[in-house]
Amino acid sequence: MELKVYVHRVSQPSRALLIFNKMNGIEFEEISIDLTKGQHKSPEFLEINPMGQVPAIVHVDFKLFESHAIYIYLASVYGVADHWYPSDLQKRAKVHSVLDWHHSNLRRGSVLYVLNTKLAPAFGLPLNPQAAAEGEKLLLCALNTIDTVWLTDSGPFLVGAEQPSVADLSLVCEIMQFEFLDEDDRSRILGPYKRVQKWIEDVKDATKSHFDEVHDTLYKFSAMLKQKQKPAGEKSEA
Amino acid sequence: MELKVYVHRVSQPSRALLIFNKMNGIEFEEISIDLTKGQHKSPEFLEINPMGQVPAIVHVDFKLFESHAIYIYLASVYGVADHWYPSDLQKRAKVHSVLDWHHSNLRRGSVLYVLNTKLAPAFGLPLNPQAAAEGEKLLLCALNTIDTVWLTDSGPFLVGAEQPSVADLSLVCEIMQFEFLDEDDRSRILGPYKRVQKWIEDVKDATKSHFDEVHDTLYKFSAMLKQKQKPAGEKSEA
Repeated sequence: MELKVYVHRVSQPSRALLIFNKMNGIEFEEISIDLTKGQHKSPEFLEINPMGQVPAIVHVDFKLFESHAIYIYLASVYGVADHWYPSDLQKRAKVHSVLDWHHSNLRRGSVLYVLNTKLAPAFGLPLNPQAAAEGEKLLLCALNTIDTVWLTDSGPFLVGAEQPSVADLSLVCEIMQFEFLDEDDRSRILGPYKRVQKWIEDVKDATKSHFDEVHDTLYKFSAMLKQKQKPAGEKSEA
Repeated sequence: MELKVYVHRVSQPSRALLIFNKMNGIEFEEISIDLTKGQHKSPEFLEINPMGQVPAIVHVDFKLFESHAIYIYLASVYGVADHWYPSDLQKRAKVHSVLDWHHSNLRRGSVLYVLNTKLAPAFGLPLNPQAAAEGEKLLLCALNTIDTVWLTDSGPFLVGAEQPSVADLSLVCEIMQFEFLDEDDRSRILGPYKRVQKWIEDVKDATKSHFDEVHDTLYKFSAMLKQKQKPAGEKSEA
């Protein structure tokens, strides 16, 4: 296969890349790099991506990492439907603007919060309440920005588009990490942002042929962690 | 003027954008948004960029923010020399990869460290030694990555290019914030990275017709702060 993608389906940009490829009929070989087993730090994988992060790709003999760079490269090489990465320069610029904003805002807030309230022990790390508080602040601010700046009345997707772009995929897959949170916590965080909630459903709907299948590992991993974290008397027999 | 750029020359991405425009003969009107006076939070500027950050542009009636998105938009609209934003898909993908990596690595480390060791009081904020320590760790790791991953033997600029791209401008202008540090601290941080030091000089040299002029405000602002921070007996009469 000329395109190999190295992913872990628990990783949010990995899932976005898988959905992007499947939605666009891009053929690829999926190679699982299990983050919980430290496979991203193996000498073999560091040859593919010296940063030790997923996703990464090898296209024939061209190695690339950073998910946003990968979507853009594949969109150009495989000539996908225009809405994923618009050829119109102003529409494209707005997509870049969202993707660039994402790194230090939604992504940083979400990773800090989810890691430090729930996920850290699964990766052998301690929970850090101070980092969780910083993450929550960033996260709420980022959700407010999506609600009031990136979503507009012109269309259901980011920057007012009629159909989703790679930015919608990247951001919604990030928000799907909230699966790890307790339900009341998730409701508390997303509750005030009705427009964001509708947009998440619109992105799921627009990609429904692949969204749930790609997220199945996340749902199962999250259910397994929740079972582990229950007090002993509440655990099921499974 | 059809292109207005809103910048503050103390801001690293603002300077990168100014150098980019000047190097490429792009005509523009420079509108200064003084961060130390809070002009980035004025209602007038929030109409241009609701995030309240510089740089931002208005091209005819198209508003755009996030510096990387701006370079790419202007490179496409004005048709600049290919090396700034290569048309070759693999070279372009590598430039995107560096730009994406930058947000959570060099930029985050540099901002945390410089702000929390020196710059915070100028913006009415307290110094935070814990944040400075976190920033230093990130920063050293980022400089090591530039030294061992992004700089290669193929050429003097990032990802082995023969001539600079927007990624070189973005990263070097970030590192120029070290002007705010004490000289021994700057030497301690950059000292181990000989290849990075040479690359910084190569980028300055390749943009020398504009680099120092655009950085003049930074040099003066930094000298003024250092004078202020000296113990009373060491201050000059000026």
